[in-house]
Amino acid sequence: MVKRNPHFAGLSEGYLFPEIARRRRALLEKNPDAKIISLGIGNTTEPLTPAVAQALELAARELGTADGYSGYADDSAGLSALREQIAAVLYKGRITPREITISDGAKCDIGRLQILFGGRATVCIQDPAYPVYVDGSLIAGAGGGLQYMPCRPENDFFPDLGGLKRADLIYFCSPNNPTGAAATKTQLAELVAFARQNKSIIIFDAAYSEFIVEQNLPRSIYEIPGADEVAVEVNSFSKSIGFTGVRLGWCVVPQKLKFEDGRPALPDWLRIINTLFNGASNIAQRGGLAALTPAGRRETQNLVAYYQDNAKLILEGLRQTGIQAYGGVNSPYIWAHFPGQKSWDVFEKILNEAYVVTTPGAGFGPAGESFIRFSAFGRHGDIDAAAQRLKRLKF
Amino acid sequence: MVKRNPHFAGLSEGYLFPEIARRRRALLEKNPDAKIISLGIGNTTEPLTPAVAQALELAARELGTADGYSGYADDSAGLSALREQIAAVLYKGRITPREITISDGAKCDIGRLQILFGGRATVCIQDPAYPVYVDGSLIAGAGGGLQYMPCRPENDFFPDLGGLKRADLIYFCSPNNPTGAAATKTQLAELVAFARQNKSIIIFDAAYSEFIVEQNLPRSIYEIPGADEVAVEVNSFSKSIGFTGVRLGWCVVPQKLKFEDGRPALPDWLRIINTLFNGASNIAQRGGLAALTPAGRRETQNLVAYYQDNAKLILEGLRQTGIQAYGGVNSPYIWAHFPGQKSWDVFEKILNEAYVVTTPGAGFGPAGESFIRFSAFGRHGDIDAAAQRLKRLKF
Repeated sequence: MVKRNPHFAGLSEGYLFPEIARRRRALLEKNPDAKIISLGIGNTTEPLTPAVAQALELAARELGTADGYSGYADDSAGLSALREQIAAVLYKGRITPREITISDGAKCDIGRLQILFGGRATVCIQDPAYPVYVDGSLIAGAGGGLQYMPCRPENDFFPDLGGLKRADLIYFCSPNNPTGAAATKTQLAELVAFARQNKSIIIFDAAYSEFIVEQNLPRSIYEIPGADEVAVEVNSFSKSIGFTGVRLGWCVVPQKLKFEDGRPALPDWLRIINTLFNGASNIAQRGGLAALTPAGRRETQNLVAYYQDNAKLILEGLRQTGIQAYGGVNSPYIWAHFPGQKSWDVFEKILNEAYVVTTPGAGFGPAGESFIRFSAFGRHGDIDAAAQRLKRLKF
Repeated sequence: MVKRNPHFAGLSEGYLFPEIARRRRALLEKNPDAKIISLGIGNTTEPLTPAVAQALELAARELGTADGYSGYADDSAGLSALREQIAAVLYKGRITPREITISDGAKCDIGRLQILFGGRATVCIQDPAYPVYVDGSLIAGAGGGLQYMPCRPENDFFPDLGGLKRADLIYFCSPNNPTGAAATKTQLAELVAFARQNKSIIIFDAAYSEFIVEQNLPRSIYEIPGADEVAVEVNSFSKSIGFTGVRLGWCVVPQKLKFEDGRPALPDWLRIINTLFNGASNIAQRGGLAALTPAGRRETQNLVAYYQDNAKLILEGLRQTGIQAYGGVNSPYIWAHFPGQKSWDVFEKILNEAYVVTTPGAGFGPAGESFIRFSAFGRHGDIDAAAQRLKRLKF
């Protein structure tokens, strides 16, 4: 008979968000009238902006016409115009269009990067972290060489690189999910120098880059000189323009990034894109293109500002209870500390006493224990109500 | 430094379709006025049908409204309504909605199935075959245990199962890409019996099932009793409703399908869907739902009939040159035999003398040598013109 893939045995039971959904349902079964507000999963709630929605609608309509129909793109790596606009508008020319591949989202690209590097690669992962880095690495078979890099208030949520063994891959997310910490240029320069010295490759997740408001914080790893020799970058339209359901992201694999044998990584990456992926939806790509016009960019800024206002409300609510909270400024996530308490216990308390769904920090890794992640994605009214309920809790 | 993933070294140079695109560009550089007609890649050309296009347009419009907006779905496995309709309309209740996961296309699902089974699985693959089975298996690391199952006119394009060593996975595509052969119930029953006896798992690719016109030919492996214990099935909206660019497909992993240790495969599959995929575009899913209404089904039949008429034109054109051609009845592909000739040579001859792009059979595997695949996806006028040009060729 066919053996179960042994890599699955190493996964912890239940992916984090389905488990949260299960507990939410359990509350509703017990108390069907509970008016639950979700600050859990980072799911956008606001309508698409006019420029983007109209572009999607037009793209859909054109597909119903003989002149406007399109099937497979000429290139699975994505529409040339979109790759050019991402290079020009978001990377200001630091990256060329041919180094950019368009995808159905950052999570999917991370999975494909794990295929690119394979199960023999050793990996370092921030702790806490987006679960896909660890679970995806385990599924790929990289479990043997997995190191955590603890990120806590004591180290300003930036890992102590000096204490690490060399690894092939370093996952790094900034602005960070879940801690909300946005790395400074000095910190990222230290990370790049460390990768160059160790001949490691950084997988830089910049999915929240549009939430950066403070001046001088880098929005891309490629703002650090030399990063294009040691880093790939994934990013997404999900959180910035509300495409969590529409599905659109991109990945940068610079031409200067090379393997030990001197071969560039980009051709192998394009081989994966051609072989195991067939391009992002042509409708979604038209929406992405609209979002990168000057009008689209202004709308994106307003949309992001809406969620940033939410983050302020949550931060204020938490601070009135005396809880120390981090993040929420250059990030849609607030990372609240409950010293001495288990985060699943705090999750249950907040769920059952305030009817607010959060995400227990322990779900993001060992160093997330005693923390709770609050997501600022939601309607103002809901967020305001949740903040009021939080203020009344005694921890 | 980071080592190149050794699995990539086993891949042949250049994925088939990019190589064809390169040769097409080379002709245009030499002869910019050449009016090239493509019967190469299986890319749909006809506009989406009204029911589907209107559903996509409405879905896009609603995303721009507060009430109609949606982000991440509750379940990465797809809209409940779509899974229910696929189970009811296309599987007539043989498969339950929870055994169905919605995806961005069959190619992507095949890649994820290769992650599910891992690189230790031994595999049997029809020869010729859609390149993704071989290339994806090699990338996953399954190169060591790869067996070809030759499918030729002599065996009615159905493999001689008796001569095979046992393998974990058997890739089988019907109606077949590229040979155009649609397996009979008797043949599929033999395949299922073989898999049950050997305790193998069939990966059944039914992406062209809507092209079946002849009575009594199975459209799903699950029409064979007992198949739900030994087969997963992938399928797609790409070719049936013209979603090659919109991206929508599905996969069936039956609850009865188990690994050696008695564990069902479905939870591991759902883990992959949750961990490395975030659901198909919510716009595309609404289009799929519209295609499964009675009106949508009628439109699909008309759309498929359009391409089937094209296939007849190509078959007639080829037969007038005395070329033996297969397929093209229950499939959009015609598989033409040029005994004693190399298929890349025939490809070049047809490209340079008739300005018609085809696909050389050798690109689909060793047994594809001396064959050419003609795709029936195209506008009637173009297909007719291509058929006229083909008639004038001397082979």
